[in-house]
Amino acid sequence: MSDEERQTVLEANRAFYRAFAQRDLATMEGLWSRQSPIACIHPGWPPIFGREAVIASWRGLLGNPAQGAIVCSEERVLVNGTTAIVICNESVVGALMVATNIFLREDGAWRMIHHQAGPMPPASERGKSSSQPAGSDKRTLH
Amino acid sequence: MSDEERQTVLEANRAFYRAFAQRDLATMEGLWSRQSPIACIHPGWPPIFGREAVIASWRGLLGNPAQGAIVCSEERVLVNGTTAIVICNESVVGALMVATNIFLREDGAWRMIHHQAGPMPPASERGKSSSQPAGSDKRTLH
Repeated sequence: MSDEERQTVLEANRAFYRAFAQRDLATMEGLWSRQSPIACIHPGWPPIFGREAVIASWRGLLGNPAQGAIVCSEERVLVNGTTAIVICNESVVGALMVATNIFLREDGAWRMIHHQAGPMPPASERGKSSSQPAGSDKRTLH
Repeated sequence: MSDEERQTVLEANRAFYRAFAQRDLATMEGLWSRQSPIACIHPGWPPIFGREAVIASWRGLLGNPAQGAIVCSEERVLVNGTTAIVICNESVVGALMVATNIFLREDGAWRMIHHQAGPMPPASERGKSSSQPAGSDKRTLH
């Protein structure tokens, strides 16, 4: 993956969080693919499938005055052909989340086809860092 | 996407959960791509990047006697060219999770390049179903 390609993916990812911060539903709608099946998993929600339901969920969130902005950080990009994955942290009203955003190259632009965000523990509670094998601290998935 | 293609993706996804249930690290290692960058987000963990760290995390989980099996259900498949996304529920020792598994077609086989799992509320606490817009219940992402 070229640096230039990586930058175009990161710009699409930034546009997503900017649309969220600006409560810009039209831009948000444009960022999501119209050509491919899409899905979205908001933290603590069941998965949502299909453009109509996904866009409706964003309409609700962007139109909710109680919804704070998301600050995105530590973006990492994986690109394989016409698909790109951005993994990043999200800071939402003091809560730390981790997100996977999946983009598809369509007509020369990166369009979102999936988003999943879920809670991440604060640094003080994370225990072993990700650079160490988890075997030594006997963590489980429940 | 043909039904046959969808079935090959679902079979790769089942192999992942079977390797987990059988604590079969060799199969788990073989399911993850060796050709492409990979990442993994276990529920409540910071993201893990790179094959060495991702496999180490599975080694720790599969080798932990306290780790219960995961039962996968409600698989949904999105395929775009050589990339496939499976979104499914995971039942882990009574806790309900929702996961995104991303596969890449390599040398004729689907190999995992990313996994994110996060908590899903029980059905009784989910409020509006995903078929209804979220706007009406004023939910937020925090």
